[in-house]
Formats: sequence, C-alpha cells, structure tokens
Amino acid sequence: MNLKEYIESMLPAIETELQNQVARLNTERTAPFYEMLAYHLGWMGEGVGKEATGKRIRPLMVLLAAASYDANWRSALPAAAAVELAHNFSLVHDDVQDNSERRRGRLTVWKKWGAPMAINVGDALFVIAHQAILDLTKTHPAPTVVRAASILQDTCLDLTRGQFLDMSYEKRTDLTIEDYFPMVGGKTSALIAACMRIGALLGGASEAEQEAYRQFGYHLGLAFQIQDDILGVWGDESLTGKSAASDLVEGKKSLPALYGLGKQGKFAERWKQGSIAKNEVKSIAAQLENEGGKSYAEEAATQATEKALEYLRQANPRGAAGESMLVLANALLNRKQ
Amino acid sequence: MNLKEYIESMLPAIETELQNQVARLNTERTAPFYEMLAYHLGWMGEGVGKEATGKRIRPLMVLLAAASYDANWRSALPAAAAVELAHNFSLVHDDVQDNSERRRGRLTVWKKWGAPMAINVGDALFVIAHQAILDLTKTHPAPTVVRAASILQDTCLDLTRGQFLDMSYEKRTDLTIEDYFPMVGGKTSALIAACMRIGALLGGASEAEQEAYRQFGYHLGLAFQIQDDILGVWGDESLTGKSAASDLVEGKKSLPALYGLGKQGKFAERWKQGSIAKNEVKSIAAQLENEGGKSYAEEAATQATEKALEYLRQANPRGAAGESMLVLANALLNRKQ
Repeated sequence: MNLKEYIESMLPAIETELQNQVARLNTERTAPFYEMLAYHLGWMGEGVGKEATGKRIRPLMVLLAAASYDANWRSALPAAAAVELAHNFSLVHDDVQDNSERRRGRLTVWKKWGAPMAINVGDALFVIAHQAILDLTKTHPAPTVVRAASILQDTCLDLTRGQFLDMSYEKRTDLTIEDYFPMVGGKTSALIAACMRIGALLGGASEAEQEAYRQFGYHLGLAFQIQDDILGVWGDESLTGKSAASDLVEGKKSLPALYGLGKQGKFAERWKQGSIAKNEVKSIAAQLENEGGKSYAEEAATQATEKALEYLRQANPRGAAGESMLVLANALLNRKQ
Repeated sequence: MNLKEYIESMLPAIETELQNQVARLNTERTAPFYEMLAYHLGWMGEGVGKEATGKRIRPLMVLLAAASYDANWRSALPAAAAVELAHNFSLVHDDVQDNSERRRGRLTVWKKWGAPMAINVGDALFVIAHQAILDLTKTHPAPTVVRAASILQDTCLDLTRGQFLDMSYEKRTDLTIEDYFPMVGGKTSALIAACMRIGALLGGASEAEQEAYRQFGYHLGLAFQIQDDILGVWGDESLTGKSAASDLVEGKKSLPALYGLGKQGKFAERWKQGSIAKNEVKSIAAQLENEGGKSYAEEAATQATEKALEYLRQANPRGAAGESMLVLANALLNRKQ
C-alpha cells in the first residue's frame, strides 16, 4: 500500500469510529445537543461534507504510526477518534475565546447556538475523547490503555497551557522568540507528538521507538507551524488561499513577529503603536524581512524539519506504513521527495 | 471513629491531594494560570479559607464509601481529588454560562479574569481530574483504574447532558415534572452516584454492592436537590441564608415550578407572562402551594430519601465508616437520627 491507499482505507474507518463515539449523545432528549457536535464535525447542517470535516490528519497519524510496527491499525481506531475529538474540543473552545465567527468556511458553534451552548459542546467533545480512548480495552491490555489515556491527558493539559500563554500574550509587547516555543509547543506540537507516540505504543514499538516517534511529531508540528507563520506574513495570497499578511493585521504572535519584537528595531516600534492596517502590511513585512525575521524563521523551520526527519529515522518505522509516514511528513512540510 | 473524626482526618488529606494534583500547572511560565485554579479552589486570593473551598462533600463520599468496605481510604485519595476537580470544572463553566458574578461569596473566575480565561481554567480542572484518577495506578491494578476512569467519564458526559437540558429549558414554557429528572439526574445526582460507586469499587465491594451504592448516591442527590428546590420557594430566609423565594424570581426550573407549569393553572399562567418581581413572590408561592406544588415536591423528596436509605442498606457498608455514611446521608437530608 502507498500513502494514498492507506488514506483511502483509513478515512472511512475513522469517520465511522467518530460517529459511533459521538452517537452516545444521540438519545431522545439530547438529540439537539448531538446535532451541535455533528454540525461541528461536518456531518450535519449547511456546508456539510469534506471541507467541513477537516482533513483528519491527526487520527491518520495515529493509525499510520501503529501500522508502521506491523500492528493491525484497526485496533487503534478508538485512539484515532480520541485525538480528533480532543483536537475539535480545543477548536470549539478556541472559537469562543477568540470570538471567531467562521471555521472551515462555516459559522462556528457559538455563532449558531451561543457561547454557553458552545462551551458545553466543547466539554462533551472532550469527555467523549476520553471515553473513546478507554474503548481500547476491547483490544489492548489495561496497562496499555492506562498509558495511552495518560499520554492523551498530559497532552490536553499542554493544550490548556499553550492556550493560557497565547491569551496572556495578547496585551504584551515585551515578548521575544523565547516566548514562542512554549506556546506553540502546547497549542500545536503537543497533540501531534501525542498522536505519534500513542500510535507507536499501540503498534507495539519499544520505549525508545515511542520516544523517537514523539519527538518526530513534536518537531513536525513545530516545523509546520513556523512554515504557516512565514506564509502568514509573506505568503502568496493566490497560493495560500488566505489574505496575505493577515497575521500582521491580526497582531498574531508568530515567530517572525516575535523575532522582530525582540530586535527592538523599527518593526517593534511600529508594532507597539497598535493595530496594523491592511495598506501598511507590505512595507511592514518588508521591514521585518530587512531586520532578519524571515531568514530567522526559515532557518528555524529548516532545523525543526531536519530534527523531525532524524527522529523519524530513529523511530525505525517498518514497511509500507513507515514509508507512507515519511511521505506524509514531507507533504506536510511542502518538501519535494 | 465517628463521622466527625473521619472528616477531621480526611479533609486535610483531600486538600493535600488536590494541591499536589493542581501543582502540575505551577511552573514558571504558567504560575499565573495555576493561581486562577488555586483561587477558585479557595487557596489563594481575597476571601481565602473554609468558606471559599466549599465543603468537599463529594471527595468525602468517595473516601467513606471506600472505607466502608474496610479498605484503607488513603489509597482512594486520587479518585476523591478527581471527583472534586470534575465538580469544580462544572462550576467554573456554569458560572460563565449563567453569567454568575459570585460563587461562595467571592467573585467568579470569569468575573476576575474574563470568560476566555475562565473557559480555559475549567478545561484545566477537567483535565487534571482525569489525570488524578489515573494516579490510582500507584495502588490499584490497571483494570480497576480503567473502570474507575470510565465511571468518571460517563458521569462527566451526564453532566454535559444535564447542562444542555438546563440551558435548553430556559426559553421553554411547555415543561412538566417529566422534564425535571433527566436534568437533575445529570446535573446533581450523576456525580454523587459516581462518588459512591467509585468509592465502593476501590473499597473492594461486590458488583451488586457497587450498584446499590450508586443508586444510593443517585437518590441521595435527588432528595437533596428537591429539598433545596422547596427551600428555594418556601424557605425561611433567616435559616437558608439566601433570599427567600429567589428561585421564583430567577425563573429556576425547580420541581415545584415544573409541577405548577404542568398543572396549567393560575401559577402557570403567571409564569408564562415573564419575570416574577420580588413583591409578587409571596402570593405566587402561596398560589403554587395551593395548586399542590409544595406537597408534591415534599412527597417526591420523601420517596427519594426512602429509596436512598433502602439502597444504602442493600450496599451493606461495614463498620464505623458504614455508620458514618448513614449519619452523613441523614445530615444532608436534614433528618433527625
């Protein structure tokens, strides 16, 4: 099998597992509650379909990691569902916290049903994530299940830590690149690291292989986020599909922006004066590039990518699934093979 | 030992366990985040102390239930901390959802730090609850830990169901007593039932005893809530400490109110016209009593109490801890011995 074939057989299985997990709420009195979760997950309501579900990258990572040690990936499906549900819990709460009105081209849960209901929808996704991972007892010994659940929960605490840092940075102008990694480590990398580690655990990898897979996921998440940050400031609008340099307008604490703030040059001076308007974006992006923000971020992305690939080699994934994981990593990092 | 002596040795141990669990967040970068949880739990900030921590009734229930089968209750401490953290997660999110400005005489978390931070504080309490219960692996075999975690998680889903029903009732006037039990079953009884069941499980009770203890907790929670509902409409302000009949002013879907709505008499007619003012409360409470709302609720509380005590007998708790559980139940139900 190649990556495409893996994805084609895994995606429908992931969707079925997710639907079975969330069906816990689909009872007479709570059917409208179920529908809120089903809407967010892309199964119901306007704009339903592939665009609305998201790419299900995280559960694919769990299954590929498990398969790369010759395990039957189907036995890891409850864990795959769990990480996707945990990811979606954080999205639903994020949207309330950030006041975001749209997600994947559709109205957010809070925009449709109000913030109090959306908080509860996020809570339910969170609970079902934890219930899902305990369903591993059907195919794995209890100590392995406790280990997997423990990894997921530690990761969820990292998510709340990252979220705290992100929110606490909003009003600060004294930040530097030092402040970037703990935030992105929690918000983006921790869950990808957990996907890899849980998959390897369930696949029967050794402790050292699990740890290498975790590190692979961590640095993959980091490289991916930094690349996204670079595109957010200097990206080609026609390629990225989002308004170029919108991250500057939104005041996002991206790695290039934090680099510029730490430099305390002209970029930092302008940033501290308040919101950046759309018509200033080009010149401010050029200023930041001049001060070295772009090349610094590109170098950081390269380093993270190299570390990720080195750890993947150490993890020693086997066979076609191992090959496919490498292809997936390269695709996510926009690297030519 | 009697109940008082049990409480005196258990409360400090519960507090220490809670503090150790929450200390996970007390690291350099997230210390201010830790402080938000510590404030809510009554350990820091203005008004710190016994009033601010709450009574820790739920963890006491876990420990007493475990001790009533001769187990060393100290080995159940992680589970005791877990239920208290899960309870507090729901309080923090409730306060955001209900826009409540005060809790236990102090400003609520969202009132102090804003709703986005409060959502994250609730999320962290929730994660730590799940981490805490997995700490049972230090003293219990993995299958028991998975069972305890599973009970806690099923209960947390019940909490979100109850919360959904509560919120969805806000705008409805077509409710009856039928709608009461699923809501209160989720919001109040489910967690108390879980405390009893997890305690019994960890104490080494048989399946039948665990189930009886669970039912005891469920009906105890129900009886307690109905009594609270009665006091909320007809209570003596000087005894309850809260403004008499405030539940009518707040439009709370209490059991007496739902009974009155189902009757479709004068009470229901007035209710449907909108908010009740303070100066109407006495006459509306009298009208509801006339229509049978008070005696219906009193009868329901009596029935739930009797069921609770019957299930406690079936659970067959042993020794001084078993006696103390009966004393605690009677105290919660305001019954003379």
